[in-house]
Amino acid sequence: MQNSYIEEMIQDRRCLHRRPELGWTEFETTALIVKRLRRLGFQVLLGTHYLNPKFIMGRDESAVEQAMQRALENGVDEAFLNETERYTGCVGIYKTGRPGPVTAFRFDIDALPIEETDAADHEANLAGYRSERKGLMHACGHDGHTAVGLAVAHWISDRRDNLCGTIKLIFQPAEEGTRGALPIAESGILDDVDFMIGSHIGNCCRLGEVGICLGGSLATTKLDVNFTGLAAHAGLAPEKGRNALFAACNAATTLAGIPRNSQGSTRISVGKLVAGESRNVIPVHAYMQVEVRGETEEVNDYMTENVKRISTNIAKAYDVKCDCQIVGRATTLLSTQKACAVLEKVAKNLDGVSSVRNIEKVAGSEDCTWLIRKVVKHGGEGAMFLFGCNHNGHHRSDFSIQDRESLPIGFGMFTGFLSEVNMK
Amino acid sequence: MQNSYIEEMIQDRRCLHRRPELGWTEFETTALIVKRLRRLGFQVLLGTHYLNPKFIMGRDESAVEQAMQRALENGVDEAFLNETERYTGCVGIYKTGRPGPVTAFRFDIDALPIEETDAADHEANLAGYRSERKGLMHACGHDGHTAVGLAVAHWISDRRDNLCGTIKLIFQPAEEGTRGALPIAESGILDDVDFMIGSHIGNCCRLGEVGICLGGSLATTKLDVNFTGLAAHAGLAPEKGRNALFAACNAATTLAGIPRNSQGSTRISVGKLVAGESRNVIPVHAYMQVEVRGETEEVNDYMTENVKRISTNIAKAYDVKCDCQIVGRATTLLSTQKACAVLEKVAKNLDGVSSVRNIEKVAGSEDCTWLIRKVVKHGGEGAMFLFGCNHNGHHRSDFSIQDRESLPIGFGMFTGFLSEVNMK
Amino acid sequence: MQNSYIEEMIQDRRCLHRRPELGWTEFETTALIVKRLRRLGFQVLLGTHYLNPKFIMGRDESAVEQAMQRALENGVDEAFLNETERYTGCVGIYKTGRPGPVTAFRFDIDALPIEETDAADHEANLAGYRSERKGLMHACGHDGHTAVGLAVAHWISDRRDNLCGTIKLIFQPAEEGTRGALPIAESGILDDVDFMIGSHIGNCCRLGEVGICLGGSLATTKLDVNFTGLAAHAGLAPEKGRNALFAACNAATTLAGIPRNSQGSTRISVGKLVAGESRNVIPVHAYMQVEVRGETEEVNDYMTENVKRISTNIAKAYDVKCDCQIVGRATTLLSTQKACAVLEKVAKNLDGVSSVRNIEKVAGSEDCTWLIRKVVKHGGEGAMFLFGCNHNGHHRSDFSIQDRESLPIGFGMFTGFLSEVNMK
Amino acid sequence: MQNSYIEEMIQDRRCLHRRPELGWTEFETTALIVKRLRRLGFQVLLGTHYLNPKFIMGRDESAVEQAMQRALENGVDEAFLNETERYTGCVGIYKTGRPGPVTAFRFDIDALPIEETDAADHEANLAGYRSERKGLMHACGHDGHTAVGLAVAHWISDRRDNLCGTIKLIFQPAEEGTRGALPIAESGILDDVDFMIGSHIGNCCRLGEVGICLGGSLATTKLDVNFTGLAAHAGLAPEKGRNALFAACNAATTLAGIPRNSQGSTRISVGKLVAGESRNVIPVHAYMQVEVRGETEEVNDYMTENVKRISTNIAKAYDVKCDCQIVGRATTLLSTQKACAVLEKVAKNLDGVSSVRNIEKVAGSEDCTWLIRKVVKHGGEGAMFLFGCNHNGHHRSDFSIQDRESLPIGFGMFTGFLSEVNMK
Repeated sequence: MQNSYIEEMIQDRRCLHRRPELGWTEFETTALIVKRLRRLGFQVLLGTHYLNPKFIMGRDESAVEQAMQRALENGVDEAFLNETERYTGCVGIYKTGRPGPVTAFRFDIDALPIEETDAADHEANLAGYRSERKGLMHACGHDGHTAVGLAVAHWISDRRDNLCGTIKLIFQPAEEGTRGALPIAESGILDDVDFMIGSHIGNCCRLGEVGICLGGSLATTKLDVNFTGLAAHAGLAPEKGRNALFAACNAATTLAGIPRNSQGSTRISVGKLVAGESRNVIPVHAYMQVEVRGETEEVNDYMTENVKRISTNIAKAYDVKCDCQIVGRATTLLSTQKACAVLEKVAKNLDGVSSVRNIEKVAGSEDCTWLIRKVVKHGGEGAMFLFGCNHNGHHRSDFSIQDRESLPIGFGMFTGFLSEVNMK
Repeated sequence: MQNSYIEEMIQDRRCLHRRPELGWTEFETTALIVKRLRRLGFQVLLGTHYLNPKFIMGRDESAVEQAMQRALENGVDEAFLNETERYTGCVGIYKTGRPGPVTAFRFDIDALPIEETDAADHEANLAGYRSERKGLMHACGHDGHTAVGLAVAHWISDRRDNLCGTIKLIFQPAEEGTRGALPIAESGILDDVDFMIGSHIGNCCRLGEVGICLGGSLATTKLDVNFTGLAAHAGLAPEKGRNALFAACNAATTLAGIPRNSQGSTRISVGKLVAGESRNVIPVHAYMQVEVRGETEEVNDYMTENVKRISTNIAKAYDVKCDCQIVGRATTLLSTQKACAVLEKVAKNLDGVSSVRNIEKVAGSEDCTWLIRKVVKHGGEGAMFLFGCNHNGHHRSDFSIQDRESLPIGFGMFTGFLSEVNMK
Repeated sequence: MQNSYIEEMIQDRRCLHRRPELGWTEFETTALIVKRLRRLGFQVLLGTHYLNPKFIMGRDESAVEQAMQRALENGVDEAFLNETERYTGCVGIYKTGRPGPVTAFRFDIDALPIEETDAADHEANLAGYRSERKGLMHACGHDGHTAVGLAVAHWISDRRDNLCGTIKLIFQPAEEGTRGALPIAESGILDDVDFMIGSHIGNCCRLGEVGICLGGSLATTKLDVNFTGLAAHAGLAPEKGRNALFAACNAATTLAGIPRNSQGSTRISVGKLVAGESRNVIPVHAYMQVEVRGETEEVNDYMTENVKRISTNIAKAYDVKCDCQIVGRATTLLSTQKACAVLEKVAKNLDGVSSVRNIEKVAGSEDCTWLIRKVVKHGGEGAMFLFGCNHNGHHRSDFSIQDRESLPIGFGMFTGFLSEVNMK
Repeated sequence: MQNSYIEEMIQDRRCLHRRPELGWTEFETTALIVKRLRRLGFQVLLGTHYLNPKFIMGRDESAVEQAMQRALENGVDEAFLNETERYTGCVGIYKTGRPGPVTAFRFDIDALPIEETDAADHEANLAGYRSERKGLMHACGHDGHTAVGLAVAHWISDRRDNLCGTIKLIFQPAEEGTRGALPIAESGILDDVDFMIGSHIGNCCRLGEVGICLGGSLATTKLDVNFTGLAAHAGLAPEKGRNALFAACNAATTLAGIPRNSQGSTRISVGKLVAGESRNVIPVHAYMQVEVRGETEEVNDYMTENVKRISTNIAKAYDVKCDCQIVGRATTLLSTQKACAVLEKVAKNLDGVSSVRNIEKVAGSEDCTWLIRKVVKHGGEGAMFLFGCNHNGHHRSDFSIQDRESLPIGFGMFTGFLSEVNMK
């Protein structure tokens, strides 16, 4: 592998690491990506050209507004911001002009609301690229994903004379909370795709390991439930209130009891509940973060329908208003044998890979599953792979990825895949 | 007081005690009353002539059917049964033909689903008039009330030349569960009534005491709530069931939390809950007996509306059907000063009365309140009194009333009242 | 197959079908079995000789007492009843005197509290052997199991000169509710067993099918939970009560929410709840039938511990007493390859068998799993098989088994197994 | 009334209004009071000299620490801070040296966590004394109470030659949340008090009205309940978590259902609930603000005990830790006829008072009730009065008191009382 790709990746990743942006607010990140892609000769799709707005979830407009202001202040061009239509992320398309398959890769770009540790021995602190944004951190490795994507773009541009078909590099916003993939899947840009490949760093793989994901990944729906009641003095006129807190509490415990499903595993979590204003006032507001999962899409739908029906009607029992918003969704992983086989072959021949293993049932949830499902459903091939690092756990303040060793493997997998299927 | 009235009362009461009948099934009791009233020259109203069927509550048609069969077998005339239109109780009207006020008295006639004790020293056992019906007993003294009413009828007939105005003796069915009074109040037969007097034996008064009830008596609503779900094997396909048991349980605990009301005391009771069929089957049926009370009619309505809203919507949260029936209602006591003053005067001059006391807030609930409220609301006078006995507690299997000493006081109060207001 | 075995089985089964007995009350059934076994030369173990009383669950002593009286009245010998030590079921042991393996078979003998249909076309009605006991029925086929066991005993006796080793026929009481097997497993009588085979008629197999059960069968625990509070008048002094109904309701809905377990499927059912005495009395008693299941023994233990902890402490929250009894338990099926292979071989060569299939994961729960687990754990072999019938569903009032066609297959499987492993 | 007292009061009140301090952090306020009292010749008790630390509730030590730092920075003397023993408030004692009754007045001094409105027409904005502390405001009028107390001190000092007996001016910290009075009541400083008088501005009285409080004021207990569970990934291992959120939710809805009490009105409020960390993590922490009230001390104790028992045991049901702290308490008002009569007489003769009314049952709760109860219980006299203002509602961001018109009435009531009982 050429040293130059590696150096570029490391530099890009660390640059991104310093300036993390949350899902749907990645304007600076997107500006960096787009500038690079265009320089490398890619056609770039932005905003509704690659996102179907009807499927956008979990977006806070005031946070978007603030992020655009911040981007402006940090030198992002106003014309570019207009071009985004207020939507982050993009797709870079490289048409070789030669007949051949359409191959798409997914790289997710968003960070997390986590404060990076200031421990001296933390990787980013040792090398001096700690997050400069208080309370925000690339604690899941998406900075690495983005850097790999940019290096792959560079490689494509370098190999332009040897490639055939078309290559689409999807820089996906808002993977955290499984929000960003579905509007891409439903935008039409995957309709001609023959191979759809996603990947993630770390997870259950240690540095040097590559995992080929055969299936699994629980389907999931994230919901925000808001209850609105009516205030009243709890001592003087409790009967005049409408108690949003009790409604939310009853809904929460009832959600816990959604019946098990014989068709597959389920999960239900009410991860956060904030309700009430003051000790002696009947609570007006309650807010609940809910998450369900299912072993199949149908089982997850069963859970989701239960959450809606229970929340809505429990609220009515308390004469309280209820608003139930889906703010994230992922499906199960539909890998194809052919795509997995290519990945396995690439992995087995890749420098730095000490072990390749098949993962029958990927744990957790991931919204790249929407992209793969879309392609597989129209007859294409799809798969995901993991490339490891010796991390301390994702979403931790001391998450680290040994970029110099691990990123080249991700890069090698993607470029290896192109060498297998898009080489003329 | 003439001995003959007393002897008749004792005999009537004991006869009724032997053959108790539950609310809405008092066909033999009604037959006895009607026969007597007619013999004494009263006009008798039966069925829908004195009951507004739209307000009938807590009636089990199959129990009515069985009771009519039993009455037939016990010698009640079929023609009479037809005359009842399947409704028990009656009103006896005595028009003196002379100008004067219209005075109405209430006597309730139903018994309870309680097995009378076989203790040798129990009053009814000592004197040989124990209930002959297994599991049924006059354990609240309504047998005494009925006997007093019949003796009052006799007295009226005897005094016919000295009385003026009109007298209505209401023999009310189904007081237990507060079911029978409202359809009488709404029938129109109270529209011309000037004085409405009700009474009860025992309660907080000992033998020799008379209590004049100035107010109180909590308004109450009795509700039967049925939940209907869908069966499924709890092990093989729990997701296919609709769980009526969990719906009822959640509804029950939510009912307990109906907010306190600053406008007056409230009560909520879920006295019985029967749910489910088998350990390993998702429960299809759940049945709940609910009772609310309120210090005012409005506060009781608040409680009732809460029960309906909560039960209905909690059921929906579980995708279960819910049927919420009102099976009994009573209101608060609206006594008038004038009626209370007459009762007090009568009591103070009555033989056998050792103490007369005013009761500010009658505890518990009583549906004679509907009759009094109806009359007071159109400008008439109304009141209730208690005449004591040394009982062991109402609704107990050893409830006793010392009929020979206590009933004459009830009789004396009613006839004394007539002597005050209907004597020409 | 000899016709005589078949005729005997049919006659035995129909005789048992007429006189069904519930779990732990099978005195007449046991008397019949023991008499036959002894006549055939078997040594018979009764009472604590084959049951470890410490592990007995779900037994109602007053029902046992009544059943013993009924048995006496129906001609069962008093001396025999004494010999049972009040415990039903037995083990018949046949020692050939020749070296060879110890093989044990399980036949369960109890009936269900189900009223048999009086539909004219119902098998038992057509052939005139309908249950003579109102509300009791062999609706799960255990009458057939018992009849097969007796015929196997006869066959053993007939083949006594050709058999080697020892054969133990376990006639297990109280399989319904998974109550009877564990005290047998823990009695010591399985300690020397080499092969432990159980079976069930019907289930997912149609007539002519034999299923070899490789594993599955959810571990399960059945619990009876009783709550005891304190009565008080719901209107006059609600604060003086201790509400068993609300405690049970809260416990029930909380049980529904026991967290899912990532180690395997779980089930929770509160199948029945009966609480409260009267609409206007704070409920004193509540009774709840609970059942949990788990994909592994550990997962089932997790569920069981949760039920205990939740019920006990929710009761304390309401100042109510709680008694939590385990009344039934089953474990998962630990079949061994060798035992399954023998069964498969036998089935494939058996007359009347049209199809043999492996069942990877047996659905539902079955307490024969305790017996098999015991033997497998000390190094023996074990398995279960199903032999089909065209039934309408187990535990239904019209359950039928086509005894003349289906029972010979069960008989053939057991005797075929002996021919494979206990033939000299 | 002398103009100089009024001017001083207005100036003091507005000065205090600008620098509000929350309960237990009123160091600057206390410094101001103490300095004044000492200058006027009062003996001053601080810290444990007037507070019994065993009864201190609802105190956050880190907030105390910060407030002391802030006070230091704002010029409060370090020696003085040491003298406080970290406790705010004080008692000023004036011994006339002449025989006579011991009279004590209560003035509460703390502010609220409310952001004062910036509306131009708001009283404090018009006159330029808006709170200078973000998020803190004297929105209940305690700034006025304190100013009245200081003016009363001045008046006493001026009248020193005409007064007899002893006068104690109690400047109480932490009345909000009913935290500060009980430790004063239990300190011993009230043991010799003959008259204990408290008051409040506003409430149900408009400007010019004085209310004499005959009784009422619900007893109350404020509780903070913390639940601590164990984190686990909600998708990967839900069974490893201990869910503090569900425990709190169940506790909350169960608290709502604490049975009504026939001995008096009750209230229960869970005013705030904050639980959980992240959507996909089993919640570790839950925090709940609870408040109960009762028409009598006994009924309030009944509610408090229920909160403790329910919270503790529901937590155990979820295997979660629970800490239940009492952070505030008030009792019912035990006014004496004699003290009320004196207040009534004073009010009727006071300039600016347009109406004097008796208030049978004071609504809400107030912890001055502890001080009055303490004195009445040992045979002294006690009462409370209200002096009105045209406010928009207490605890609102636009609460206003028309200090120039309303404070002189409060001042006149207290000094009038002294003129009646402590004039030589």
